[in-house]
Amino acid sequence: MAINKIQEEFTDYLKKIENYNEAINVMYWDLRTGAPKNGAEQRSNVISQLSAEVFEMTTSSTMENYLNLFEKEIGTGNLNEIIEKSVKECRKNYDLNCKIPKNEYAEYVKLCSLSENAWEDAKNEGDFSKFQPYLEKIVTMKKQFIEYWGYKDKKYDTLLSFYEPGMTTVKLDEVFGKVRESLVPLVAKISNSQTKLIRKELSQPISIDLQKEVSEEILEKLGYNFDSGRLDETVHPFQITLNPGDVRVTTKYIEDNFMSALFGTIHECGHALYEQNLSSNLIGTPLCEGASMGIHESQSLFFENMIGRSKEFWEAQYENLIAKTGEYFKNLSVEEFYKAINHSRPSLIRIEADECTYPLHIMVRYEIEKELFDGDLQVKDLPKIWNDKMEEYLGIVPSNDREGVLQDVHWAGGDFGYFPSYALGAMYAAQFKHKMKQDLSDYETILKSGEIHQIVNWLTLNIHQYGKLKEPKELLVDVTGEELNVKYFIDYLEDKYSKLYNLV
Amino acid sequence: MAINKIQEEFTDYLKKIENYNEAINVMYWDLRTGAPKNGAEQRSNVISQLSAEVFEMTTSSTMENYLNLFEKEIGTGNLNEIIEKSVKECRKNYDLNCKIPKNEYAEYVKLCSLSENAWEDAKNEGDFSKFQPYLEKIVTMKKQFIEYWGYKDKKYDTLLSFYEPGMTTVKLDEVFGKVRESLVPLVAKISNSQTKLIRKELSQPISIDLQKEVSEEILEKLGYNFDSGRLDETVHPFQITLNPGDVRVTTKYIEDNFMSALFGTIHECGHALYEQNLSSNLIGTPLCEGASMGIHESQSLFFENMIGRSKEFWEAQYENLIAKTGEYFKNLSVEEFYKAINHSRPSLIRIEADECTYPLHIMVRYEIEKELFDGDLQVKDLPKIWNDKMEEYLGIVPSNDREGVLQDVHWAGGDFGYFPSYALGAMYAAQFKHKMKQDLSDYETILKSGEIHQIVNWLTLNIHQYGKLKEPKELLVDVTGEELNVKYFIDYLEDKYSKLYNLV
Repeated sequence: MAINKIQEEFTDYLKKIENYNEAINVMYWDLRTGAPKNGAEQRSNVISQLSAEVFEMTTSSTMENYLNLFEKEIGTGNLNEIIEKSVKECRKNYDLNCKIPKNEYAEYVKLCSLSENAWEDAKNEGDFSKFQPYLEKIVTMKKQFIEYWGYKDKKYDTLLSFYEPGMTTVKLDEVFGKVRESLVPLVAKISNSQTKLIRKELSQPISIDLQKEVSEEILEKLGYNFDSGRLDETVHPFQITLNPGDVRVTTKYIEDNFMSALFGTIHECGHALYEQNLSSNLIGTPLCEGASMGIHESQSLFFENMIGRSKEFWEAQYENLIAKTGEYFKNLSVEEFYKAINHSRPSLIRIEADECTYPLHIMVRYEIEKELFDGDLQVKDLPKIWNDKMEEYLGIVPSNDREGVLQDVHWAGGDFGYFPSYALGAMYAAQFKHKMKQDLSDYETILKSGEIHQIVNWLTLNIHQYGKLKEPKELLVDVTGEELNVKYFIDYLEDKYSKLYNLV
Repeated sequence: MAINKIQEEFTDYLKKIENYNEAINVMYWDLRTGAPKNGAEQRSNVISQLSAEVFEMTTSSTMENYLNLFEKEIGTGNLNEIIEKSVKECRKNYDLNCKIPKNEYAEYVKLCSLSENAWEDAKNEGDFSKFQPYLEKIVTMKKQFIEYWGYKDKKYDTLLSFYEPGMTTVKLDEVFGKVRESLVPLVAKISNSQTKLIRKELSQPISIDLQKEVSEEILEKLGYNFDSGRLDETVHPFQITLNPGDVRVTTKYIEDNFMSALFGTIHECGHALYEQNLSSNLIGTPLCEGASMGIHESQSLFFENMIGRSKEFWEAQYENLIAKTGEYFKNLSVEEFYKAINHSRPSLIRIEADECTYPLHIMVRYEIEKELFDGDLQVKDLPKIWNDKMEEYLGIVPSNDREGVLQDVHWAGGDFGYFPSYALGAMYAAQFKHKMKQDLSDYETILKSGEIHQIVNWLTLNIHQYGKLKEPKELLVDVTGEELNVKYFIDYLEDKYSKLYNLV
């Protein structure tokens, strides 16, 4: 059969997989946004069945034959670019799933489920020892899996590659090291500063209906297209893509914490803009998603912190916010509002941390993960090293494991290598922003005039449209002319927070 | 392989089909309740793919082998009842789909799609001639399909059997004839009556939020379980079952027509109660739905008209309705309200017709369908016969085809044999109600005290739980001791409307 004909067949095969994924995602969204509880168990049977179909199709001998055939053609010019990159993506997924013996994988899935339950109990009781044996088994199995998958320099690099293709321990040591060197003293100075930015006006009760209305308006202002999405309420905010014409966001409304819904919405909006602006050529392929977890997070953090927590943005939007919310902000100038939403203070819980302290939370986890897989660190010693690192980086120590080493679910589910993406996102974002300001010479004026679409256009042109066609490093070099350089992130934080806290 | 083992395999096979159906239904519900428009086209690809899987599984050689094997065992006691009935249901579906040559079926599907477009244009322009050639082709193809499917006495009986298993032209002629004999003079007397029941208070504007709140409360009063369902807003109200723990209803809110939302909701609630109360033993089989279209409609009409438009029900609920809606009904006594919601008058549009005139609309369509398939009626003569029958049965004549023969989409989509179920529903409902009043000696007291759960329990015990385990006739005989007897329906209407309109 001619290669073109087989490319068409393969395209149909991939489309079928993506269609199943869309059906699964619709059902997942539905379960999270108000599906009645009595139907949930049977619904999970349906999701399991379709997930099994996807697993079967991505690991089948049909898939293997396609991959073997097309891999010979890579670089010959016989394949179009989308097929070529899709083949690489499918191979990664194939190896990920097929290199583990089935019985071991089944055992691992079961272990993770037990482990998550154990973690929940342990967290509730603040007792790490209840979780420890499960985590030990997970780490042991994961190390064995890395042997199956293979690794070059460091075992941990294999785990990193699942979330951040091309990222290595060497690179992370370098960039995290530099950031930490600047950030630890900066955070300490902020802690010791006499300047207080926090304002009680931000925690006045405000009706959910009004929060909803303002959230929708902000989404539109930021360029979110409601003809290609919708906003709903869930316990935990998330963004989910059903297809590029149907990119949904959710947020959580708390009456006396409007800022939570507002910045949660803006964060998810950043993710959503990425997905709404993917090239339609990628629909039906595994490339129709963000380049990596870190690049995705760069978009959400860019919108949440660099736009949503900038003074310029609120200079354009604040009058309308006051008009909408009436009494709520009437005693707060835009300057005071800007300062209040940038209040920074070391805290124990990662998901509540501010922009400035957040990367240090990630570094605590990164150091631990790295040492677990390539060093001598033992699971039993995690609580101690956690507390030591918290003190070293943030200057505070959890009083119990509940607000310490037990706070995140990730490790209980076997997700090692994921955390760094959260911090990388902010670093990528600063580098993109630096380049954007060179290209759009009137960047601040754009923000002040509320013409955000110019910024979104830049992001679409340079980042969004490519989806997974480019690896993170390739994208970064293409857009900014250099690999990850944390100078931009450090400069950004030092400049912003020195001014906010009158530091010298 | 032992027969038990094969039964298990077959059960898994059926479960898989029903799981696909659940996924399709979730996506359908989502499209109707607010999915963003830009994602709709790609979503329809996903629905098509899963529908094709279902079609493939229900018409596969695997299915045929199961059916051939199990059909030999029917009646031997080797199969459990659910398998035995499932086999019959699957066979019906298999024959329906496999007896038509594939190319003819494809042509027919295409034709229906073109025909629906032509119907829409023709309706907008009130010009039947634009629709006529399409309808002619559909009738011709449908007649050919009936040859493939086979028929006994009348061709039309085959079409009837898809919606109302066991129903025949002979039976319909008998029951519709009797009803018509009583109903035509009753409707004429109402038309000539000096009594006017309609009240302008019912069309005062009332906020959508309040309509929503009252609709939810009424659903709960009627026994709808919100842990197994939810209420949403759509352009056309419907009920959809994802699984028996997730049975959803929708309604339409119009500000100055609260009664539309209220009775629309109550109607869909009747359908939903049927589905929420199906036996959980039927989950994952083709029996996990209503016995027939007509039996399903008996439940919706029982709740809409026999409960929702009864005086006794409102004697229990009216005080609360007034309390909730404030000014809205303050000048209306419960007696006046009861009369106003039962206002009856011959009208041209079926879906706006009241309980009393509605069956006559169906009979116009039934007479036409019957003559198209087993008589000499030509499609070109439809407008004339339509208008003649309307005059004969309802005493009014449409001034154009838009409000006459072109009003319904059913024929444009090839749905012949469906209409009778709408009228049968009311007749079944009256017969069930008659029996229920014998079993629950204090039926009126139950309604007056709002203890609707006693009524729902009776329906669950006698009807709901069985799903498709029983055919309509079997169900009717088991519950009421006799086949369809329209005496109960005629008595019900004559009694109710004679009192309402002071007829002698």
